[in-house]
Amino acid sequence: MSDRDERHRRAMQTLKSHVDDKVAAATERRGQLLVFTGNGKGKTTAAWGTVTRALGYGYRVGVVQFIKGQWECGERARLEEDPNLEVAIMATGFTWETQNREADTEACRAVWAEAERMLADSEVYLTVLDEITYMLKFGYLDIATVKRALENRPAEQTVIITGRNAHRELTAMADTVTEMQEVRHAFNAGLEARRGIDY
Amino acid sequence: MSDRDERHRRAMQTLKSHVDDKVAAATERRGQLLVFTGNGKGKTTAAWGTVTRALGYGYRVGVVQFIKGQWECGERARLEEDPNLEVAIMATGFTWETQNREADTEACRAVWAEAERMLADSEVYLTVLDEITYMLKFGYLDIATVKRALENRPAEQTVIITGRNAHRELTAMADTVTEMQEVRHAFNAGLEARRGIDY
Repeated sequence: MSDRDERHRRAMQTLKSHVDDKVAAATERRGQLLVFTGNGKGKTTAAWGTVTRALGYGYRVGVVQFIKGQWECGERARLEEDPNLEVAIMATGFTWETQNREADTEACRAVWAEAERMLADSEVYLTVLDEITYMLKFGYLDIATVKRALENRPAEQTVIITGRNAHRELTAMADTVTEMQEVRHAFNAGLEARRGIDY
Repeated sequence: MSDRDERHRRAMQTLKSHVDDKVAAATERRGQLLVFTGNGKGKTTAAWGTVTRALGYGYRVGVVQFIKGQWECGERARLEEDPNLEVAIMATGFTWETQNREADTEACRAVWAEAERMLADSEVYLTVLDEITYMLKFGYLDIATVKRALENRPAEQTVIITGRNAHRELTAMADTVTEMQEVRHAFNAGLEARRGIDY
């Protein structure tokens, strides 16, 4: 074995024992709270990736979309025939399209009732609260209500929250927080949003 | 209308015209190069979310997995019956498991040949090069080869590259770059990796 190969082997062995140690130490089993936040592309997309993953094992999944109600959505089209998936949508679309605070609040409360039902259902393995951060920011929902529903959910249920500017009380209680930071976005360079990629 | 509602309406109107202006300015239509990098959770997951999205519109998709070959993968299980999806896997698994530089290089070159075929195929709408960044870092692939294949791909094809420490020449040529930053990860707090969520 050459010197280079031997050095590589030793480096990989060190890495392997480091990873093995961490795996051995990670023994707590329960559902988790994940927050995908930040201004970059990938938050909702990562949530749908996890939905696909969970459905792949036959788990029941609930998705509540708080903002993108009137948009096309390729993921929903691909997965909606799955009997283990339930999707609830706030049907008014983007809030800057409606410009009506009262109607938006009403629509938000209606879809939050669906979320509360999923969060209380021990058959649901994963619940996604997509773009709920904006509901808190706009004051359509209050943080105490959301925290209570999260705290009281079944121990085995994982929840994913997506959206910019996640409330600090949400990130404080989360098990995993990823900040998706925009380094560059094609849209800002004049590239049109692309079907099947951006929506 | 109350003062608060009126302020909200005006704020949303400003936001709407800002978004409308950006949408109007984004007119270039072509496939894009996206890089999901950083040390946080969500890179591969966002790639699979986009795969699901593209399949939802009936587009052809190729996925090349450069590292996670021996892992279970819920997304693959959920989507693999889709005739529009092709998945190629580097079958040796994590490189720190094998600790054999020569065998890994061989396995990498074999699966890169699959990637090159997809990158040259004008029927493929989206190609995912999952965790290819490590192949460049370990020297199993050279950056010039990868850049050439990316530059020569069909104009309509979008490519997603995932992995930590993306080569600066890749981020320089990308249309969209998101840095998934780990703020907190459940694994480090002793929570076991969860089926259907983490893999």
